[in-house]
Amino acid sequence: MDRLEQQINFIIEIDKTKEIFRQTYISNGMRKENDAEHAWHFAIMAVLLAEYANEPVDVLKVVKMALTHDLVEIDAGDTYLYDAEGTKTKAQREMKAANRIYHLLPEDQGKELFELWREFEERKTPEAKFAATIDRLQPILLNDATDGKAWLEHDISEEQILERNVHTKKGSEKIWEYMQKIFAENIEKGKIKRR
Amino acid sequence: MDRLEQQINFIIEIDKTKEIFRQTYISNGMRKENDAEHAWHFAIMAVLLAEYANEPVDVLKVVKMALTHDLVEIDAGDTYLYDAEGTKTKAQREMKAANRIYHLLPEDQGKELFELWREFEERKTPEAKFAATIDRLQPILLNDATDGKAWLEHDISEEQILERNVHTKKGSEKIWEYMQKIFAENIEKGKIKRR
Repeated sequence: MDRLEQQINFIIEIDKTKEIFRQTYISNGMRKENDAEHAWHFAIMAVLLAEYANEPVDVLKVVKMALTHDLVEIDAGDTYLYDAEGTKTKAQREMKAANRIYHLLPEDQGKELFELWREFEERKTPEAKFAATIDRLQPILLNDATDGKAWLEHDISEEQILERNVHTKKGSEKIWEYMQKIFAENIEKGKIKRR
Repeated sequence: MDRLEQQINFIIEIDKTKEIFRQTYISNGMRKENDAEHAWHFAIMAVLLAEYANEPVDVLKVVKMALTHDLVEIDAGDTYLYDAEGTKTKAQREMKAANRIYHLLPEDQGKELFELWREFEERKTPEAKFAATIDRLQPILLNDATDGKAWLEHDISEEQILERNVHTKKGSEKIWEYMQKIFAENIEKGKIKRR
């Protein structure tokens, strides 16, 4: 196949991302957001908040992670952060999906996105650590804006929230501090269950 | 206001982008796509197709244009490409919106995004010309994938399509050539009215 045609086929395939819904509500509280919307928001936030990364980051690399890290959910579906059962099989399901989806692209580009996805998942480089921080901050801001709608629906506790988000301080101490303020306010208001 | 808080307020404000609908349908043809989804798709396409730009481009700059060029529609609404009446007042409505929205950010960042939006609209730099090409290619691919659904709904003609998209060759001759192939096929199939 022609290189451009192969790229276009991939571009059409990933349109399915617009129909993969997350547990988080958009800020008006009327419906859940999808993966494409989350990725867009995450990418802008990475651009605007890069100054708070603990270590200097290559912003384009973080943005690429933001735009493409959830493409695996086209096959693997969205696994809610607090879904303990789903989390057990997540890595395996997503690896299989990554192998198919990223390799629809010409070899060089498929390899680049596959490696970026792995780097993001491993959270070891400055970019991956910072990307993880923003990936978590985005739904937290929406939960806060919708009076904890998704947290209430899933009966989320302070313990769960802290356990599942504490790693974000590795990407940005400043943002972790800000997040903890949001948690405290929402615990106070009864939107997150007290420990 | 604290700098981070000002940035977070902006991040919440632009969530409204997820409820601004365009005329184009997503690839499964079931509903129209919104500005956030379009921007996400546009940004990935810019990363993947940058090799076809007529002149070398700063990819991060193009991606920032992709992510933020439509924020003005939060106030100004979406103006359909083939809406002749709406197009007359578009520039004025969008300038007013840009002045409000980008300036919710801290001054340095607000200025950067405002200037990027202006640069995108003026289509003079290599990045702006290439961004314009991808901005147009994205809905064309979705129209093609949905058997011309939006084109048929608006009774779009070959003449309109060519007139409103011919500038895309200034960003990428290769993509303009590819677009023309799509137009020819859709004229043949009766999805775009013959001249």
